[in-house]
Amino acid sequence: MNEFDFIQRFMQGQNGDAQLILGIGDDAAIIRPRAGYDLHFSSDMLLAGRHFFDDVAPADLAHKILAVNVSDMAAMGATPRWALLSAALPRLDEPWLKAFCASLFAFAQEQGVVLIGGDTTKGDYVFSVTIIGETPNGQGLRRSGAKPGDEIWVSGQLGLAAAALHHHWGWVGLPDPIFAACEEKRLRPMPRVALGQQLLPLAHAAQDISDGLAQDLGHILNASHVGAVLWADTLPTLSAFRGWAKGDESRTQQLYDWMLAGGDDYELVFTAPAAAHNAVLQAGLNSATAVAQIGMIQAATGLTIQNSQGDVVILDKQGFDHFV
Amino acid sequence: MNEFDFIQRFMQGQNGDAQLILGIGDDAAIIRPRAGYDLHFSSDMLLAGRHFFDDVAPADLAHKILAVNVSDMAAMGATPRWALLSAALPRLDEPWLKAFCASLFAFAQEQGVVLIGGDTTKGDYVFSVTIIGETPNGQGLRRSGAKPGDEIWVSGQLGLAAAALHHHWGWVGLPDPIFAACEEKRLRPMPRVALGQQLLPLAHAAQDISDGLAQDLGHILNASHVGAVLWADTLPTLSAFRGWAKGDESRTQQLYDWMLAGGDDYELVFTAPAAAHNAVLQAGLNSATAVAQIGMIQAATGLTIQNSQGDVVILDKQGFDHFV
Repeated sequence: MNEFDFIQRFMQGQNGDAQLILGIGDDAAIIRPRAGYDLHFSSDMLLAGRHFFDDVAPADLAHKILAVNVSDMAAMGATPRWALLSAALPRLDEPWLKAFCASLFAFAQEQGVVLIGGDTTKGDYVFSVTIIGETPNGQGLRRSGAKPGDEIWVSGQLGLAAAALHHHWGWVGLPDPIFAACEEKRLRPMPRVALGQQLLPLAHAAQDISDGLAQDLGHILNASHVGAVLWADTLPTLSAFRGWAKGDESRTQQLYDWMLAGGDDYELVFTAPAAAHNAVLQAGLNSATAVAQIGMIQAATGLTIQNSQGDVVILDKQGFDHFV
Repeated sequence: MNEFDFIQRFMQGQNGDAQLILGIGDDAAIIRPRAGYDLHFSSDMLLAGRHFFDDVAPADLAHKILAVNVSDMAAMGATPRWALLSAALPRLDEPWLKAFCASLFAFAQEQGVVLIGGDTTKGDYVFSVTIIGETPNGQGLRRSGAKPGDEIWVSGQLGLAAAALHHHWGWVGLPDPIFAACEEKRLRPMPRVALGQQLLPLAHAAQDISDGLAQDLGHILNASHVGAVLWADTLPTLSAFRGWAKGDESRTQQLYDWMLAGGDDYELVFTAPAAAHNAVLQAGLNSATAVAQIGMIQAATGLTIQNSQGDVVILDKQGFDHFV
C-alpha cells in the first residue's frame, strides 16, 4: 500500500456537500462560500509524546485531533464545516489506519465536518489539522469584547484531563471510578459547538480552554483590557473530586491547579452581561451543556482567584507554555 | 520569550486585507469571502531530514515552506490569498526565528499572501501550511480535463532540484556553476502563479510537479482516463546539462531520471488543445515564464516516454513515494 492507495481507500467517499465543488484528490479542494456567511479558520498541530502518548489507541487519537480543532470553532460560535488533515506516520500500518480513519470519519460526520484535503508523509507521528467553520457575517465570538460587570461562565467540568495525566505520570493515585471519568474526558473531549452557537447573540467574549482556565481567561482579559475575579469553589468539576479533596489541604490545592491551570479541558469560558444570566442558563439547556457562573469581569486589570473563605488562591503553575 | 511573545512579535503587523475580518490572535481568523469567487484549499507538511536538511538556512526554509504551498495554488490557476502555518520547533532561537520570519513575510508579501493563523509547539522541526486561494467561480484548473489530442506542456526547467540533492548525497559530482544553479532552484523554488492564472481559459488540466514529472503527469492521466507520449529530449532543463550529458549514456540516463522522476521541481505540467498552442506561448510571455511542449495526450492509457531516436526511455525509479 503506497501513499496514494491510502488516500484513495480511506479518505474518499464522504457524504456530499453542496458547497464542496471539488474534494480530495486534486492539487486543492474547492469550496463555494455562501453569501452572508463569514469563514473561520484555525489550525492545531499535535505531536506524539507531547500531545498524546506514543501508544494511544488510534481511534482515541483520531477523535482528539479533530475535537481540539472543532473546539476552536465552538469558541467562535462557528459551525464547523470542513477540515484538512496532514499527518506524518512512521509506517502505513493497515489495522492502525483503519481504526484511525473509522473513528475520524465517524466523529467528523457527527460534527458535520467534511475532510477536504491534507498531506501524508513518513516520520514520527505528527498531525496538523486546519478547520474551517461558518457564522453569519459579523457574528463570531471574539476574545476582545468582555466588559466590566460581565459574568464569567464556563461549560462542563474542569481539570479532569489534567488529573488523568497526573495519574498516568504517577504524580497522584486516583481511585478507579474517578480515574475512569477523567481518562474518558482526556481521551474523548467533546467540543461545545452547540453551546457556542447558542451564545452568538449573548456572549461578549469567548475562548476554549486548552492551556488551563486561568491562562485562557487571561487571553480574554488581555484582549478586552479588563480584569476578573474568579470564585475557585464554584468551578465545576467531577463531583467525586469534592469528596476526594475535602479537608485535605494538599488535595484541595491540587484540585485548584487542575481546574485552573490543567489544560486539555476543551470547555468554553465566556463572558456575558448580567442581564443575560437567565438567557445563558437557557442556552445551556438548549445545547444540553452544563454552564456555571464562576466569577465577574472588573475594570481593574489582573486576575484574582478567591476561595469561599475569601482567601486568594495561588497556583503552582500558571498554565501550559508550549516551550517549557 | 514564550510562545505568545513569539506570536506577538513575529506574526503580527502584516499588511491589511479588506476581506480579513479578524487576523492572528483569537481562536480563529475570520475571512469574508467575495461574491463570485471560489476558495481553494491545500495543505503540505514538511519534516526535517525528509523535506529539508537539518542545517538548512532559516531564510531558505521559510521560502520553501510557503513556496511549495503557493505552488498548489498555481496548479489550480488560483490567486493565493491567505495561509496558516503550524510549526514544531525544538527551541525558540531568536536569531533563527528572525531570519525565518523575515524571509517568510517578505515572500508572503511578494505573493500577496497574508498569514492568518497557525500553531506553535515544541518538537523536532515540522512545518505544516494550509493555503487558501481564489478563482472566479468554476474556473479552477483540475487534473481531470485532459483530452486526446491535447498538447502537454511544462513550465521552467526540470530536474535541477533532484540533481542538487544527488550532489549533496555524493551520488554525483556536478561542476560548480551547474551545482549553483541547481541548488538555487532546490532552495528557492518559484511557484508559477502568474502562469496558472493565464492558463485558466486555456488549459484542460494542470498539476504542479512535486514528486517527479512522470508521476505527477500520471495523476492527470488517471484522473482524465487518457494516456500520453512524452518526448524526453524536448524536456526543458538547465542548458549546461545537455553538454554535461552529451555522448555519455550513463549521464544521459541520469538526466532523464532527474527530469522525469526527480521531484521538487514546483513547475506546472498542463494540457491544452492544439488549437490553443499559440495562446499558450503567449500565456508564457505574459507571465514571463518559459513554457515548452513536451508531448501529446492520447486516448490509449499509459505513459510512453521516447527519446529523439524513437527509443523508449525506462526510468530507474517512477517518482517519489512518501512511504518508501
